[in-house]
Amino acid sequence: MIQAINHIGIVVRDIQSAQVFYIEKLGLKLSTVEVNEAYQVKIAFFPVGEVLIELIEPLNEDSAIARYLKEHGEGIHHIAFESDDLDLELKRLSTLGTPIIDKVPQPGGQGTQVAFLHPAAANGVSVELLEKNR
Amino acid sequence: MIQAINHIGIVVRDIQSAQVFYIEKLGLKLSTVEVNEAYQVKIAFFPVGEVLIELIEPLNEDSAIARYLKEHGEGIHHIAFESDDLDLELKRLSTLGTPIIDKVPQPGGQGTQVAFLHPAAANGVSVELLEKNR
Repeated sequence: MIQAINHIGIVVRDIQSAQVFYIEKLGLKLSTVEVNEAYQVKIAFFPVGEVLIELIEPLNEDSAIARYLKEHGEGIHHIAFESDDLDLELKRLSTLGTPIIDKVPQPGGQGTQVAFLHPAAANGVSVELLEKNR
Repeated sequence: MIQAINHIGIVVRDIQSAQVFYIEKLGLKLSTVEVNEAYQVKIAFFPVGEVLIELIEPLNEDSAIARYLKEHGEGIHHIAFESDDLDLELKRLSTLGTPIIDKVPQPGGQGTQVAFLHPAAANGVSVELLEKNR
């Protein structure tokens, strides 16, 4: 079951310069910076209430995020919804004919497991499903 | 002070068809549908934890959202951050040289007051500031 929004993913060219807005203008605090090998990105998290703002910087030119950046420029990339059972969620959505990119959960930030749906599933919105603490 | 994320605004051509994903695939519930005259849009809210998913449909071809839809297609449009004092926030951001679209707060959904910053302020991300219950 979907229980909350875990984070909003924002693609940027450079976390160092992009974070200035979130820290100095919005008054948020940087919580963690990580490298995610599965998606070949560096990610920085800024908590706001129960949600995280996630800045995403591509590690190299070959990552999907680098290709996204080249095509669309910087901006909001995805919404990550938190589920209590990611495997069950993926099985249910698959049965309903929902187009899924990550049919097998991938390692996300902060020890989570994640899977992206195809943007065609949600009128062009990139939806990530996420389960904490598996 | 920024305290939470109030909603994520998603531009769609037609709320009626777009909401199927959020209701049938994610299991969310529609809370309210409103017409917003200030922005010339119809909006539908779907609560997820403390955040709302806001689907936005242009009321006519002249609205800024209709122009956005024509240029960018459907997708995530903005993040709305909740502040305890919108006037103070706008004054503070203005002093810091932040480009602001709505220098005077406008009526948002559900009785809120809102103001959009210029996307140039935040690396292409459209940021809405919002105050509840004024």
